Amino acid sequence: MRIPNSHPRKASLEVRHGLTEGYKKGLVAEAGLIAHGRGECFDYLLGEKTSLQAATAEKAAAAALLSAENPAISVNGNTAALVPGGSVNLARVTGSKLEVNLFYRTKKREGLIGKALKKAGAGKVYGLSKKHRIPGLGGERANVDDAIWKADVVLVPLEDGDRTEALKRMGKTVIAVDLNPLSRTARKADITIVDNVVRAIPNMIKHARQLKGKDKKQLAQILKNFDNKKNLEASERLIRSGLKR
Amino acid sequence: MRIPNSHPRKASLEVRHGLTEGYKKGLVAEAGLIAHGRGECFDYLLGEKTSLQAATAEKAAAAALLSAENPAISVNGNTAALVPGGSVNLARVTGSKLEVNLFYRTKKREGLIGKALKKAGAGKVYGLSKKHRIPGLGGERANVDDAIWKADVVLVPLEDGDRTEALKRMGKTVIAVDLNPLSRTARKADITIVDNVVRAIPNMIKHARQLKGKDKKQLAQILKNFDNKKNLEASERLIRSGLKR
Repeated sequence: MRIPNSHPRKASLEVRHGLTEGYKKGLVAEAGLIAHGRGECFDYLLGEKTSLQAATAEKAAAAALLSAENPAISVNGNTAALVPGGSVNLARVTGSKLEVNLFYRTKKREGLIGKALKKAGAGKVYGLSKKHRIPGLGGERANVDDAIWKADVVLVPLEDGDRTEALKRMGKTVIAVDLNPLSRTARKADITIVDNVVRAIPNMIKHARQLKGKDKKQLAQILKNFDNKKNLEASERLIRSGLKR
Repeated sequence: MRIPNSHPRKASLEVRHGLTEGYKKGLVAEAGLIAHGRGECFDYLLGEKTSLQAATAEKAAAAALLSAENPAISVNGNTAALVPGGSVNLARVTGSKLEVNLFYRTKKREGLIGKALKKAGAGKVYGLSKKHRIPGLGGERANVDDAIWKADVVLVPLEDGDRTEALKRMGKTVIAVDLNPLSRTARKADITIVDNVVRAIPNMIKHARQLKGKDKKQLAQILKNFDNKKNLEASERLIRSGLKR
């Protein structure tokens, strides 16, 4: 379907189209369509743009990835469908490893997402053979590969709350992208980016490029100045006040 | 996928799972998945529980169905997937007729929903042959069967704004279940229940059982005391101000 240029919500409809295409290709789970619908609602209340709070979190996130010893980026179905190239570029700019990591896991879907990332230019893609288990999680969801297992800083766009908590318990610094500031993921992460992943990833790349030359001290100062709790509360106020006629 | 008992948001994920299962069975439309996501967003902002306002509206709704001459319950795909047994029980307790009524209508989906309701214990299910047209609506959406056509009071869980308005123009009392207090359906209905349908239907059954012995005067008093505009405004304030965590 082509959406006419005149449509005022063309951008949002094109993102939705990208997701349904990803669903048809087998990258996205049915539950991923619902999750996207929830995200659209929060995004609508945010005015469908990157807030000042989100921009601040995106800069802190870039600083955290650049400061890390072993940064990793977790990629699920929705992320692979919406920002495959962005995920690969962010990994390259920040020296992060990419790991496919699904909540509704099937071998087939993992393989398709791995291929999509390769097609978008990725080098090694982790997560296609799981070698480790995250303590305190039951079932398939506990399995991870070397990238997330060894990471000191991990970016989880669109992650489940349970897994975010388990990653935190392992002592990792968790960066989340979540349009819902009330989710457990949002509340448990160290840096929560309340923004649409299609804006958040390009913004993080931009910040990472700008920060790449800076020394460790400057990056540490950015992280020290960032207060996730206050930032989240401000995002929540923004969303609730966005509910106007 | 089985969601482990330990997951703190098991209930919400199971509802989501029920909907994706309904989608795979052909009961739910693609648009129904996205609409459910939007509902989840508002439900999050409400704290995922029945508010005092919603409970009041649910009691008034039960009184309205019990007071009606010809009450009807409209069932769409999401309702059939999420609360088939609840819909059938509510119809039984309140003496309402059940009518399958879809926005994205196909013969096949109508038939599947009819079967799902029968399997859940329904007697006669209306809506599988449409005999009448709602004035002022174009296309397939205008067609209804005897239950909605003759109803003086009609419950429309998760209904489109256009149809809600058309039912109102026919002089019917409309009860809506809608998590978005700003939707046209929410604003046009006589009784608007701002609650998740998986909580609203069981709550209405409970109220209907308690009210069933009462005389018409007592039911009329409950309806007289109910002010939908004020109730809706209170729900909206609740969402805007947020619940304490």
